[in-house]
Order: sequence, then structure tokens, then C-alpha cells
Amino acid sequence: MSILDEKKRVAIVGQSGGPTVAINASLAGVIGEARKAGFSKVYGMVNGISGFLEGRTVDLFDRFPGEKSLDDLAHTPSMYLGSCRHKLPEVSDTAFYKDLVDKLNKLGVTDFFYIGGNDSMDTVAKLSAYGEQSTCPIRFIGIPKTIDNDLLGTDHTPGFGSAARVVSECMRNISFDARSYNLQSVTIVEIMGRDAGWLAAASALAGERPGLSVFEIGNAPDLIYLCEIPFDIDSYIEDVKDVLKKKKTVLVAVSEGIHDKDGVFIDEAGSEHKTDAFGHTVHSGVGKVLEGITADRLGIKVRSVELSVLQRCLAPLSSPVDLYEARNCGRVAINMAMTGETGIMIGMDRTSNSPYQISYAPQPIEDIPNKVKTVPLEWIDTKHHGVTEEMMDYLRPLVG
Amino acid sequence: MSILDEKKRVAIVGQSGGPTVAINASLAGVIGEARKAGFSKVYGMVNGISGFLEGRTVDLFDRFPGEKSLDDLAHTPSMYLGSCRHKLPEVSDTAFYKDLVDKLNKLGVTDFFYIGGNDSMDTVAKLSAYGEQSTCPIRFIGIPKTIDNDLLGTDHTPGFGSAARVVSECMRNISFDARSYNLQSVTIVEIMGRDAGWLAAASALAGERPGLSVFEIGNAPDLIYLCEIPFDIDSYIEDVKDVLKKKKTVLVAVSEGIHDKDGVFIDEAGSEHKTDAFGHTVHSGVGKVLEGITADRLGIKVRSVELSVLQRCLAPLSSPVDLYEARNCGRVAINMAMTGETGIMIGMDRTSNSPYQISYAPQPIEDIPNKVKTVPLEWIDTKHHGVTEEMMDYLRPLVG
Repeated sequence: MSILDEKKRVAIVGQSGGPTVAINASLAGVIGEARKAGFSKVYGMVNGISGFLEGRTVDLFDRFPGEKSLDDLAHTPSMYLGSCRHKLPEVSDTAFYKDLVDKLNKLGVTDFFYIGGNDSMDTVAKLSAYGEQSTCPIRFIGIPKTIDNDLLGTDHTPGFGSAARVVSECMRNISFDARSYNLQSVTIVEIMGRDAGWLAAASALAGERPGLSVFEIGNAPDLIYLCEIPFDIDSYIEDVKDVLKKKKTVLVAVSEGIHDKDGVFIDEAGSEHKTDAFGHTVHSGVGKVLEGITADRLGIKVRSVELSVLQRCLAPLSSPVDLYEARNCGRVAINMAMTGETGIMIGMDRTSNSPYQISYAPQPIEDIPNKVKTVPLEWIDTKHHGVTEEMMDYLRPLVG
Repeated sequence: MSILDEKKRVAIVGQSGGPTVAINASLAGVIGEARKAGFSKVYGMVNGISGFLEGRTVDLFDRFPGEKSLDDLAHTPSMYLGSCRHKLPEVSDTAFYKDLVDKLNKLGVTDFFYIGGNDSMDTVAKLSAYGEQSTCPIRFIGIPKTIDNDLLGTDHTPGFGSAARVVSECMRNISFDARSYNLQSVTIVEIMGRDAGWLAAASALAGERPGLSVFEIGNAPDLIYLCEIPFDIDSYIEDVKDVLKKKKTVLVAVSEGIHDKDGVFIDEAGSEHKTDAFGHTVHSGVGKVLEGITADRLGIKVRSVELSVLQRCLAPLSSPVDLYEARNCGRVAINMAMTGETGIMIGMDRTSNSPYQISYAPQPIEDIPNKVKTVPLEWIDTKHHGVTEEMMDYLRPLVG
């Protein structure tokens, strides 16, 4: 491809789905590499595809004139461009897609990049499918991002390593806090993950640096429950009692998405019919629900902590490896577009664990959406309240 | 005092009350300075005065043989020695105090140090009073510690600066998260402080580094409610509506201890009669209670985040100034004991704000306990939902 051809290339990029601390790093990767590759313009969609359809775009070369400004962007959490949750219609709705492509053509867009998780890859897959059937020459490329680590086609997702680091750091420091008093207590930490337990599993890393204390410490957390295994309240209470035979303070990590053998979420079961004294409905997370159950059954001090949005936004605890890889995913997306790829998501392959090495490879976009990569059952210990050494080996390099 | 006299000096030190990230720094200061000053031994009370009464002590020179180990201790959050919440009887119970002093004499203790907040200073005050009336020669010295910053006799308390930094960093990053979507929303962040609003006030620091976004950002948080001012739900809803006229996402910081004009805590009012579907009582914090009210009144997306124990334990976000001063408070306590002081708490005086400078001074211990230093009303803005520039000047140097 000649320099002249490349000068005519115009990219557009959007961010979609839930925020992470790494998604702006991918955006910075796209902008910086597009400039190097000779793109004449990079548009940003404000609030993703939804904002684009309303005509809301910005000029990103203009806003980020040099590497310094891109470094600042890469270290800003959440989405610079804003997000959306917008499901595109089926590809059979050709009128919709023709209109959308007309809007892209009006801006002279040759390359479309979309950074996000499962739903965002659904957007890229539909656009790619329409592009193929209509022989539209625009390249459509997905860049992965989700703290949940539940995307197929990649060893792990940008955003996960940082969230995993927040979870393990918080868990580590909560464990110091929990053992201050000389009394029996249970501390339950609720961790994000409705469909996959990757983040809750990352809490196990907290036990690797036990820190200084006059007390016997042991692992932190003592018990980890992932949503891949049906949760049984009676077994859980027995597990807690077993730990209490050996030590006074029990630390429990739990995926928000744990559910019973019939698939009923524990938090939903516990939140029914609940209103406060003002008559307002209150939704309690699974941590609060388990707190009530544990306190009533065991009659000891119980506290629950919901890490909440801090897991996905606490930039000072981000993983350097995660930010580095997220930025690379943006760069690789541009480079793959330059070689003519379309209808792909950038995936990461782990080629070695020690030393940790990954390579970037295109993944067919149609294989990605509407599926969930859950934790392999063989990485959960046989007692169903912890993780195996294989899981630890997988996690360690990602938190940096 | 001759070297010989000093060789006979034996210290005992305890930690009490709620954990902070800085309380081990004070302990490290006591141990290191006692070694320099020629103390022959430093005992640690395990679980404070309560553990001491049960005969649980450790040899701290033995456990921390050099400066490197003390540096590690100073950077470990929560209490190395464990804590207690144990109220001593009135000083008129001379039998109790005679027994306690006998136990100290058996160890040869000449100097007693206790690191903690209001209740811990009550312990030191009672021991000092007994010591004075019984002409017991042991020196009793309090070292301040509380994230709540509500102790009299000191410009601020060790532990507060770090907690304030956690609050402002979390608030800053939550503000990035909250503005991702193109829809009206309210995010309520519940911050520790039952009796004083210092920590909630520290959330105002988040607005000083707004960060990168394609959107108009404005201050974060938009509204701050401290427990010093009676909270009125109707006024609060009007305040939120006013912000929504100017921007889509409203960020609210609130002290856990806000209460109505009759002194009824908002969280208690909202938590009455509330049980979940399993029949267990659920205590909701003020954030959850306000979340329900706000969603019902305004019909828009509302989320609440409880920073919970992370405020007092998240060591990676600790304030370097805070850790430095906390360690100095431990050192100064030893030095003041060497000059014969007793019946005091180590206080910090701010001698200059720019450059920030403090000096350490003894404060009569009897002036400290059972009182609360609240936020001066003139540091709260006239609309009662923010803080003044004076408050910001006070806070800035403390977070480091």
C-alpha cells in the first residue's frame, strides 16, 4: 500500500460497556499507532455507537497532539469518550445498516474500531457481517476490554489484570483489618462477576504476602466461592465453622453471581419483598444477604464489604502489565487493519508462563459474542471453596 | 539521667480502638526510639490493655531487631499487636488499679505508652490519675490515632491523612466511572464518620485533579453532607435536582453519621423493620437508604458505594506525610518520657500552612477523652452541601 493510499485512511473508534482502568490505554494505542501509520484522521464516537448514530464525534488527533497527552490518557481510568449499552438490530435490518454505513462514509471512514466486552463484540460482529454481505470496504475490528475476563478468543482481557489487582490488594488489607480484634468474626467480601468467577478467584493472590502480625495469619481469604459452582448455604456454614475451629477470624470471598443448584441467585433470593422504613425498595448484594444469614446462624460478629465500582476504576492500583497490554491491543488493531484484516477481535495468546509472554493474534469476530468464558472447573479445588495452583499460575503475571 | 538509670527503663506499648494504616508506624517509632534512648526492653501488649490484663505480652526488641524490620512494620496496615475495646473502671476502684500496676511492676515497666483514639485516651487518663494519687512512678503517655480526626489537643490525628487520601482517591476515580454513560444518574458515596465529618469533607480534594474526559466535568463530588449539619431529605432532593439542571451525573458524598434535626440517624430511620426473604435482619448504611429515597423520588438511575473498612486499611493509598508523622509521634512519646513527662498525649501543632510545618507538644491527658472535635461550622459552606477554601487549605498538606 502506498503512502498516498494510507493518507486517505480515516479511523473511527468507540468505547462501550462497563468502565475499566485500561480502556483508555487501548484508545491511546489506537490514536498513537494510527498517527504513525499515516492515518489522516481518527474520529472518536462520543458514547459509543449510540452517540455516533446521533452524530456525536470528536477529532482525536486534534485532542491528543502528541505522545505526552496520550500517556496521560492511558493513565486515566474509565472511558474518555463515554460509553453506551446499545444493541444493534439483526443484520437482516439492511435499512438500518445502510444508514449507519452512509454515516461512516460521510466522514470518509475506512477503519472502524470498537473497544469493549461481549455486547460490544456483538456490535462489531453485526457490522462485519453486514460489511461482508454488502461488500462495503470498511474494516471492522474489535478490541477486547472487560474486568470480568469472560471473553472467548483471548487468554485474558485488558482491564482484568487491574481489577484483579484491586481485588487482591483490597482483600490483603481487609485481612489485616479483620484480625485486629480478639473475637470470633466473619468478614465477607463481595466481588464483581455475575457469570464468571475470575475476579473472585483473584482474591486468592492476597494470601501470597501475609505481612506482619503478632497473630498466626494463614491464608487470606480462607474461603472463596465462585459462581461456576452451585452455592449451598448449609455447606457454606459448615465451611465457616471448620475454619473457626482453627482461627478466630474468617475471611470469605464471594462472586456476586453465586446461585443455588436451581440457578436462583443468592442475592435475588435474599432481596425479595424488602423495603425500608420509608417504604422504599432496597436491593442488597449477596454480601449483605450472606452477612445476615451468617450472623443469625453462628451468632458471631459478621461484616460484609462490597468492593463495588472500585474494582473497575481504582486507577492507583492498576496493573502495569494490564495497561501495557491494553495499549498494545490498540496498536495491534491498527497494524492488523493496515494488513487488511477485518471481522476480527484482537486476541492475546499466552505463549509462555515463565517468563510470562503473550502474542497478539486476530480472532474471527463471529466466534466471540453471546458466549461466556467461565473458570475451568478443574481450577477450582475439590472442596469447592478455593482455587488450584494452576489458577494461581494463570493469575500471577496479570496483576503486575 | 545517667546511662545506668536509663538501662533500667522498660517500656510497654499497646494499640487500641479501630485499625488505621498508620498505627503500626507509631509502634515502630516507639520501638526504634526506645532502643536509641537505651531502654532495656519494650513489651507489646497483645490486644491492648485487655490482653495485658490476661498476661499476653511479647518482647518487641526481640521481634524487631533492626531498622529494616521497623520500616516493614511501619508500612503494614492495621495493628501488629491486635486491638481491643475495653473500658477501664473508674479510678475510685483502687483494687483494680493496684492489681494492674502490680502486673506492670512485675515486668519492671517504667513507661507505659498507649496508641489509640478517644477511648484509648480514657484508659491513659485513668491510669495517669491513679498513678498520681498513688504516687506510682510509672509514666503514662498517650499517642493519638484515629481516622476520624475527632481528637482534641492536636491539629489532626495520625491515621486521618491516609484515610482522607483513600477517600479522595476513591471519590476521584468513582467520578470518572459515574460519568461514563449518557444518562441522568446519582452516585452516593458513604464515608466513615459517625460523630465528625472530617473524612467526608476530604472527598472535596477529589475535585482538584479532574482528569481527562470528552465531557464537561466540574467538581467531584457535587454535593457533600457532613454530620455536623442536620440533614433534611427534602432539601437534599432539591440540591440534587439543582445539579441535574447543569449536568447529567451527580456525585454525592455523605458522612455515615448524618441525622435529622431531632438527632435521628438517617440510616437508623431507614433500617427499621427491615428483614430479607430469609427472615434475617439487614442493616443498611445511609448510602443504601439514600439510594432508595433518591431513586423513588427522582426516578433516575441511582447507585450507592460504601467505602467501608477500605478507608482505614488500604495501605497502597496511604499518605506519606501521615506515616511520617505517625512514626514521629511514637518517637516523640519516648523522648517526652525521657524528660519525665507523664499524664500527657502527644499533640501536633500546625505552625505554618505554607510551607506546611508542625511541632509536637505534650497535651494534658485529662482534657482529651470523652469529647469530640467536630468540623468548625464556618468551614462548611453556607448552603450546607460543601466545604470552604479554609477546609481545603487544612486538608491539602495531610494527604501527601
